[in-house]
Amino acid sequence: MKVETAHDPVRERLEDLGAEPLGTVRQRDTYYDHPSRDFAETDEALRLRRESEGDGTGTDHSDSSTTATLTYKGPLVDGDSKTREEVETGIEGPDAADAVLRAVGFEPAAVVEKERERFDIDGYLVALDSVAGLGEFVEVEAGGDADEIDALRDGAFDLCRRMELDPDESIRTSYLALLLDADQ
Amino acid sequence: MKVETAHDPVRERLEDLGAEPLGTVRQRDTYYDHPSRDFAETDEALRLRRESEGDGTGTDHSDSSTTATLTYKGPLVDGDSKTREEVETGIEGPDAADAVLRAVGFEPAAVVEKERERFDIDGYLVALDSVAGLGEFVEVEAGGDADEIDALRDGAFDLCRRMELDPDESIRTSYLALLLDADQ
Repeated sequence: MKVETAHDPVRERLEDLGAEPLGTVRQRDTYYDHPSRDFAETDEALRLRRESEGDGTGTDHSDSSTTATLTYKGPLVDGDSKTREEVETGIEGPDAADAVLRAVGFEPAAVVEKERERFDIDGYLVALDSVAGLGEFVEVEAGGDADEIDALRDGAFDLCRRMELDPDESIRTSYLALLLDADQ
Repeated sequence: MKVETAHDPVRERLEDLGAEPLGTVRQRDTYYDHPSRDFAETDEALRLRRESEGDGTGTDHSDSSTTATLTYKGPLVDGDSKTREEVETGIEGPDAADAVLRAVGFEPAAVVEKERERFDIDGYLVALDSVAGLGEFVEVEAGGDADEIDALRDGAFDLCRRMELDPDESIRTSYLALLLDADQ
């Protein structure tokens, strides 16, 4: 679940609700085109994420504390809550992984950069995202098995209301798609 | 450089020459077919290597000490010495990396398992490889820049002779290709 909204009032609500702050990270996501499959058509994605500890200053952090993950996202299995199959692994050398992907025909299609301030509340992850070129968003994420989708979605909707956000204003479009739309 | 030969006499020569033993590892390499490119045709390879400390007993080691790397190998740039461009990165979750690769259309084509006893001598890496289904081989590896190829190859040839191996018996075929041939 993702809603476009200013962060300050949501952060206050999270403090009132007793959410646990998990710190801020900077994420730089590169999405790749497949050499022979149209990911836009198949609703899949391959993403290389570089993540570093953020300090809220918005400055670049290309230092040694960067971690990286390679993630495959499958097509939507539940349209209402944007639920997808995800498989991911930690990557020790993101630049080398990028070189391997390019060598076998994956081309970088877009880069999404954001600062993400995270909170834990009732087992849900709430992210206050400041996305370069797009603005401020709040995301609610829950991980679980496919047979728990209904319960997890209901819980996320309920949590949105407690944060005084309207689940009906939830955006189903990814940051990637929003950025690609904004480019046009 | 790779020669098929019994290990015991070579190991004795290496001791006489003062080579430094670097220990034994077990390697399990999965090679993948590309979703739309014929790697056999383009002379490229994509390999996921799982490596664990070996103890010479030949038993399986699927424990926590396993490390993994994902490697792209480009076409031969020097046919005499089997020199290729290589790009590789450490992988934290080999099973997840395998799942990501399969999800985007890479299919496991073959698995090569071997025990590799390694020595360092004059900056060269000498590997005594016991390859499942193939037998015993000795490999000499050197890393360097493209403009050093001639010097590195001459040094490897010279080292082979000091180990009483005949560089002219060098096999240019990869273990992967040898195994695929043996299957037919």
